[in-house]
Amino acid sequence: MAKKRTNKYKKHIKQSPGSIVYTGENPTEKLFIDVFDYAIDFVKESELKSVEEAFNFKHTNSNTWININGLNHIQDIEKIGKHYNLHPLIMADIANTSQRPKIDVYDDYIFVILKMLYYDENEDIKIEQISLVLGENYVLSFQEIEGDVFDNVRERLRLANGRIRTLGADYLLYALIDAIVDHYYIVSETMGNKIEDLEEILFNGELKKDLSKQILNLKKEVLKIRRAIFPIREIISRIEKNEHALIQPNTIQYYRDIYDHVIQLSDSIDIYREMVWSLMDMYMTSISNKMNEVMKVLTIIATIFIPLTFIAGIYGMNFDHMPELHFRYGYVILWGIMIVIFLGMLYYFKRKKWL
Amino acid sequence: MAKKRTNKYKKHIKQSPGSIVYTGENPTEKLFIDVFDYAIDFVKESELKSVEEAFNFKHTNSNTWININGLNHIQDIEKIGKHYNLHPLIMADIANTSQRPKIDVYDDYIFVILKMLYYDENEDIKIEQISLVLGENYVLSFQEIEGDVFDNVRERLRLANGRIRTLGADYLLYALIDAIVDHYYIVSETMGNKIEDLEEILFNGELKKDLSKQILNLKKEVLKIRRAIFPIREIISRIEKNEHALIQPNTIQYYRDIYDHVIQLSDSIDIYREMVWSLMDMYMTSISNKMNEVMKVLTIIATIFIPLTFIAGIYGMNFDHMPELHFRYGYVILWGIMIVIFLGMLYYFKRKKWL
Amino acid sequence: MAKKRTNKYKKHIKQSPGSIVYTGENPTEKLFIDVFDYAIDFVKESELKSVEEAFNFKHTNSNTWININGLNHIQDIEKIGKHYNLHPLIMADIANTSQRPKIDVYDDYIFVILKMLYYDENEDIKIEQISLVLGENYVLSFQEIEGDVFDNVRERLRLANGRIRTLGADYLLYALIDAIVDHYYIVSETMGNKIEDLEEILFNGELKKDLSKQILNLKKEVLKIRRAIFPIREIISRIEKNEHALIQPNTIQYYRDIYDHVIQLSDSIDIYREMVWSLMDMYMTSISNKMNEVMKVLTIIATIFIPLTFIAGIYGMNFDHMPELHFRYGYVILWGIMIVIFLGMLYYFKRKKWL
Amino acid sequence: MAKKRTNKYKKHIKQSPGSIVYTGENPTEKLFIDVFDYAIDFVKESELKSVEEAFNFKHTNSNTWININGLNHIQDIEKIGKHYNLHPLIMADIANTSQRPKIDVYDDYIFVILKMLYYDENEDIKIEQISLVLGENYVLSFQEIEGDVFDNVRERLRLANGRIRTLGADYLLYALIDAIVDHYYIVSETMGNKIEDLEEILFNGELKKDLSKQILNLKKEVLKIRRAIFPIREIISRIEKNEHALIQPNTIQYYRDIYDHVIQLSDSIDIYREMVWSLMDMYMTSISNKMNEVMKVLTIIATIFIPLTFIAGIYGMNFDHMPELHFRYGYVILWGIMIVIFLGMLYYFKRKKWL
Amino acid sequence: MAKKRTNKYKKHIKQSPGSIVYTGENPTEKLFIDVFDYAIDFVKESELKSVEEAFNFKHTNSNTWININGLNHIQDIEKIGKHYNLHPLIMADIANTSQRPKIDVYDDYIFVILKMLYYDENEDIKIEQISLVLGENYVLSFQEIEGDVFDNVRERLRLANGRIRTLGADYLLYALIDAIVDHYYIVSETMGNKIEDLEEILFNGELKKDLSKQILNLKKEVLKIRRAIFPIREIISRIEKNEHALIQPNTIQYYRDIYDHVIQLSDSIDIYREMVWSLMDMYMTSISNKMNEVMKVLTIIATIFIPLTFIAGIYGMNFDHMPELHFRYGYVILWGIMIVIFLGMLYYFKRKKWL
Repeated sequence: MAKKRTNKYKKHIKQSPGSIVYTGENPTEKLFIDVFDYAIDFVKESELKSVEEAFNFKHTNSNTWININGLNHIQDIEKIGKHYNLHPLIMADIANTSQRPKIDVYDDYIFVILKMLYYDENEDIKIEQISLVLGENYVLSFQEIEGDVFDNVRERLRLANGRIRTLGADYLLYALIDAIVDHYYIVSETMGNKIEDLEEILFNGELKKDLSKQILNLKKEVLKIRRAIFPIREIISRIEKNEHALIQPNTIQYYRDIYDHVIQLSDSIDIYREMVWSLMDMYMTSISNKMNEVMKVLTIIATIFIPLTFIAGIYGMNFDHMPELHFRYGYVILWGIMIVIFLGMLYYFKRKKWL
Repeated sequence: MAKKRTNKYKKHIKQSPGSIVYTGENPTEKLFIDVFDYAIDFVKESELKSVEEAFNFKHTNSNTWININGLNHIQDIEKIGKHYNLHPLIMADIANTSQRPKIDVYDDYIFVILKMLYYDENEDIKIEQISLVLGENYVLSFQEIEGDVFDNVRERLRLANGRIRTLGADYLLYALIDAIVDHYYIVSETMGNKIEDLEEILFNGELKKDLSKQILNLKKEVLKIRRAIFPIREIISRIEKNEHALIQPNTIQYYRDIYDHVIQLSDSIDIYREMVWSLMDMYMTSISNKMNEVMKVLTIIATIFIPLTFIAGIYGMNFDHMPELHFRYGYVILWGIMIVIFLGMLYYFKRKKWL
Repeated sequence: MAKKRTNKYKKHIKQSPGSIVYTGENPTEKLFIDVFDYAIDFVKESELKSVEEAFNFKHTNSNTWININGLNHIQDIEKIGKHYNLHPLIMADIANTSQRPKIDVYDDYIFVILKMLYYDENEDIKIEQISLVLGENYVLSFQEIEGDVFDNVRERLRLANGRIRTLGADYLLYALIDAIVDHYYIVSETMGNKIEDLEEILFNGELKKDLSKQILNLKKEVLKIRRAIFPIREIISRIEKNEHALIQPNTIQYYRDIYDHVIQLSDSIDIYREMVWSLMDMYMTSISNKMNEVMKVLTIIATIFIPLTFIAGIYGMNFDHMPELHFRYGYVILWGIMIVIFLGMLYYFKRKKWL
Repeated sequence: MAKKRTNKYKKHIKQSPGSIVYTGENPTEKLFIDVFDYAIDFVKESELKSVEEAFNFKHTNSNTWININGLNHIQDIEKIGKHYNLHPLIMADIANTSQRPKIDVYDDYIFVILKMLYYDENEDIKIEQISLVLGENYVLSFQEIEGDVFDNVRERLRLANGRIRTLGADYLLYALIDAIVDHYYIVSETMGNKIEDLEEILFNGELKKDLSKQILNLKKEVLKIRRAIFPIREIISRIEKNEHALIQPNTIQYYRDIYDHVIQLSDSIDIYREMVWSLMDMYMTSISNKMNEVMKVLTIIATIFIPLTFIAGIYGMNFDHMPELHFRYGYVILWGIMIVIFLGMLYYFKRKKWL
Repeated sequence: MAKKRTNKYKKHIKQSPGSIVYTGENPTEKLFIDVFDYAIDFVKESELKSVEEAFNFKHTNSNTWININGLNHIQDIEKIGKHYNLHPLIMADIANTSQRPKIDVYDDYIFVILKMLYYDENEDIKIEQISLVLGENYVLSFQEIEGDVFDNVRERLRLANGRIRTLGADYLLYALIDAIVDHYYIVSETMGNKIEDLEEILFNGELKKDLSKQILNLKKEVLKIRRAIFPIREIISRIEKNEHALIQPNTIQYYRDIYDHVIQLSDSIDIYREMVWSLMDMYMTSISNKMNEVMKVLTIIATIFIPLTFIAGIYGMNFDHMPELHFRYGYVILWGIMIVIFLGMLYYFKRKKWL
């Protein structure tokens, strides 16, 4: 019997709409906030002790990236949201980790939800939601747990000569999204490798019993990745078209670059999808082929020996008058006949290409 | 033979178009109306004795939610409709429970038809139509039977400090739609669980005979849910774009939040759809696999014993001159030969990976 | 051999384009014209003797519905067309019964082609083309044969108090289209019942040989219905958007109601389509299941008796030295061994769940 | 082995783009030009001796249709093109017979490429490209070989009273396109007949070996026809919308009539497409059904006789002590037992509905 | 086991976005630059020794085509890019050979990425990326390795009387793109031939084991080609609509010609796609057919000889009282009976059309 599953939504729907509820499955013990405050001539990296310390960066001239980890600490998240004037619905979206990637454009900030994708050590795909808020000269990022794909961005922030230090928070937002999208390539390629591995197994004819399970899981993974990546196309094109005051005109072309990447990824994923669908066909064909082979062996053996056994049966009968039984060379002649039949059959199968 | 089905439309078409006919299958004994009259500083909950009592709320300053249960009481429904100036076609739509979800925007009210979805105790999907009318400062809701998904909304109305009390009837309409959409999540998740249960059964190879029936039913359920949910996207986006005087600008973003939810649900349902389609393939593959296994056993047994039986048949013949029969160790040697053949066959099958 | 089919288009193409040719297969003996002339305070129903009588209604103040049956009477049709200033191409369209549903909007009239659908006594779907012309204050309807879906409309015209008498010819056109669309519901529901009947037959495993034929015919019917219904969506939305002087603003919402119905029907038909496609899969699966069952019986019997027969063959051999043959209890022991093998096999199949 | 195919494009690509190269496979010995020069009061039909004679019709007041057959005579084609000011790319398109149907609108002429479709005597579909140029008061038509679908147009031109003589070159262009589209109906209907023939063969269970080949060929034909017809929708709608000075407003509605026809054809072809796809399923099912039947016969015979043969084998054994062998009625009793088993089996198969 | 694959993206993502990294697999030993400098009255062809020599052509009046081969020489590429004011993101795109075909329109140049397709000697499809930059009066082209599809363009440049010499750099860009697209026709036709070869093999019933592998590879090739060709439609239509100052109005129609070609190619590829999908079905059908044939032989032989063997078994029994054994003509009569059974079976199979 199938195991009992719990319905996690049932408990949530007793809430007021827009109430902030953490729906993820990875609560952290404490909130962890790290901050990069930087301008062209300095960079200050710090880890905050309390939420309140994060309030100071709102009206500075420098650019600030506040990275908040631990979405289960609802009260703290709420405090930050209030200080930075975030709409209650946005706060709810941040905490609800089953959001679809989307963009909400407000007058004084832009809110983006994306999914970070990676394969864990068991080669299972993992999806972590990340929420990004771009304000006047700050970027807030909200993650479920520590550990992310931004180490590369951090390193570039630390370097004095990087482009990232000279440009504003809109470029920082771009750099973060770009880092996320860059990781999609790894996921996409791993997916491609998995498909090719399965193909090879199928072509080698090793029809293990759980192959159909693996193919189905691959199907689901492709659908999951699709679902995480496809909405980004719309997100980026809304950034491009919106001409929001927070996005500098010269940053737009960087976002366009991400757009190109996402289109390219979407293409790949659609091809993977078709390939996975084909794998199932391939699998069915392989099974049929195998069955065919089995049937042929059975047919050959049975078709050859059934008539011969009949002949042997004839001369095992106990009739009083069976003259052949008393011929001098009856037995030898019979062997001759049977060998002729045997060889004739073999020739027939050869011609039919069953051998 | 298939049972005789009745064609319920046949009787209706003798009607004038726009005439109000109840087409549902759940008539109630009496009309049941409950009313929430509220403003920021008070809330009055009441159950009405007669339809006429519902007329008083049209021109009050407070917000009012009039919830009418029992669509078979046509005359009463009609009276309310007339008092609130509803178009005859709308009255017909309310009573006709097989409507598609839709929105009709009139100058002085907005009319929305939605479907409430839930699983009954037999895990069969149930669909109940609900019609909502948003007027100046009232919301009318028409349901087929008592019992709905709005208990959460009621509770929040009763609380003095909720956002819902401070905002207008447009927010109430949002809250009702949101409650309906929230319940879709439960349905969607139950559907997901059902699919996973079937998958597990298929992977475990328990090919019960009615599996294809179950898969087909699942298919139908997915299509039904799709049909209930997909049109909502258009409904919400028409509310958003319409800039109707009845919808306050600051409520719009709440509707946008529903829109995001519906998009997310649509995504899930499309994935479920693909999964259910795959289940059928999976089932076919499982059957083929099973057949393959059966064939292999048959082939192995037959292929081993048919030649051996032939040999035994040979030496059961009654020829006068069969020298082997008189050899001292003829019988033992034959056993040896047969055992060699037997082992050779086993080795062959082993190599072919049929064992 | 397939029967010889005639190619009915071959004979037509020698015609000038726009020439009026009746392409249907139901010629009537004589043209039959019935007229409803009505206003708010009177209604006059008459059957016309000659085509010329139909000319009088063009410039009256009353509304008139002229219903012409018998499209093979080309000359008469042409006379009416000329009197009412219909474009030659429209006359050609009326007579050509294989038109696609469409709307042509001219300055002083609107021309609509629709399909009436019904099941005949053999449960075969029948399609009859109907052409409607809405003029200043008249509606012309052209049908192939007498007998239609408008009895309901006629009755309402006869009643003094109906909405239809108070409104203009544009409402009459709506009422006629609505009556046609209402009949689609019957067809759609019959189709649904047919599908469910087939499903039940499939689930009960009665795999009659012509099931695939029935499924294919159902497929064709769905495609035919789709083709008749889908274009209506565009027709109605063009009426809505066109703001033609002949359509009163307050009639528009009635057309919108038809639009909703057609969308709903389209939804149903698309679901039917998917269900019919699934039926074929279901049928394939059933065949495979059946084959599986047959194979299992064969395998069980053969697998049990082939080895036993081999053993019996062994002791039917005529070797001089077969000590077992001379044992006191040889025969009994052999029976014992064979029974053990038999039971062992049964147990094996039981465990494999083949029994 | 598959035969060696030549790659006809390889030789062309050494050409400058826009160079005029004949790519068809039906070169004619000489260019053949026939001309219809006509106005409301006269018509002059002539066959031209040289290309230069075709130059005179450019600036006449009468309407002229110049029909040029033989696209391999590049130089002559080029001369005409230059005289009538056709763009070099258009000349290249005319000679390249693998163009897709399209329209190019220039200031002083309209260029249309279409495909004539017909079935040859072997019921193979043939496609011939035709290029049409509509100028001030002339139409040029370029065909690969003599023989076309325009005989009907010619006859109407010869008649003094036809509409075609009173209207301009734009109507002539319409008449030519209409003649081409009219022929599509024949092709479409022949296609429909072919599909129904195959269906009947499949339903009658005559599974000839090349059926899958026939179905695949049908598939290809449908795709070819689709490809020839579908682009015409866009061509016509561009003519309609363009409001080009060469197209009179009152001719537009004739083009719209073609548009309706093409939409109708597209519908039919899409239905054919689905039907052909279904044929393959049908074929697979028929094969499975056939296999099922074969299996059942095998199973019945084997299942009945294998146990009986075993019993016979038992009493063919040579044990010294087999008491049954010496019973007075042993042989008769055994026959009785075997007949009981035989009948029991038959009953079992009857109940299983395998007989 | 599947071989270990490397994930080439992993190493790249440690880079700053927009950093120039060569991602191809064909590094060349040295950069190779060849230049065509031409105007209507002269042409100068040269091979550059150093990158710096390429700088002189920016502000000349003549048109220049600078063709750079060897994308792994990042520094050199970067120098050229800087001199010609190319945006850093464009430099990155040039070096990243896994770009999707696209166009980026800047104020003073147009950047186009395309894919050159060709089959190598093993009939495997090869894809090489080419980047084109159109500036004031120069075209830069960046290729991974030497050897391209432009020999035809070069030859035309060398000729004094070609159209290409009289027109500007925008026409040169067109000529290059046209040369690339022309080569697609070869690829498309080779693909078509491959499909037809496979079809023929399938129809001849030569079911080699790796056929499904070949079909899958074909599927992948079609998807790859699709991916290379489809985006070009958008590229060209953006060139057409953009009305960029660098593109002369009279060149536009040449681009439109490419557009027609690409649409035509897209059509072909979509048809190929459907055909390849059909091949898989065809293959499955062939396997089923083959199995059917094998089963029939088995069934015929077994069904004929199993009952006969049973009869022989009967008269091999050792009962004391078997009167038939002692009949004078018992043996002969039995042979007669067996021959009758044999012929009866043959007749039955004949009637069933299994023979």
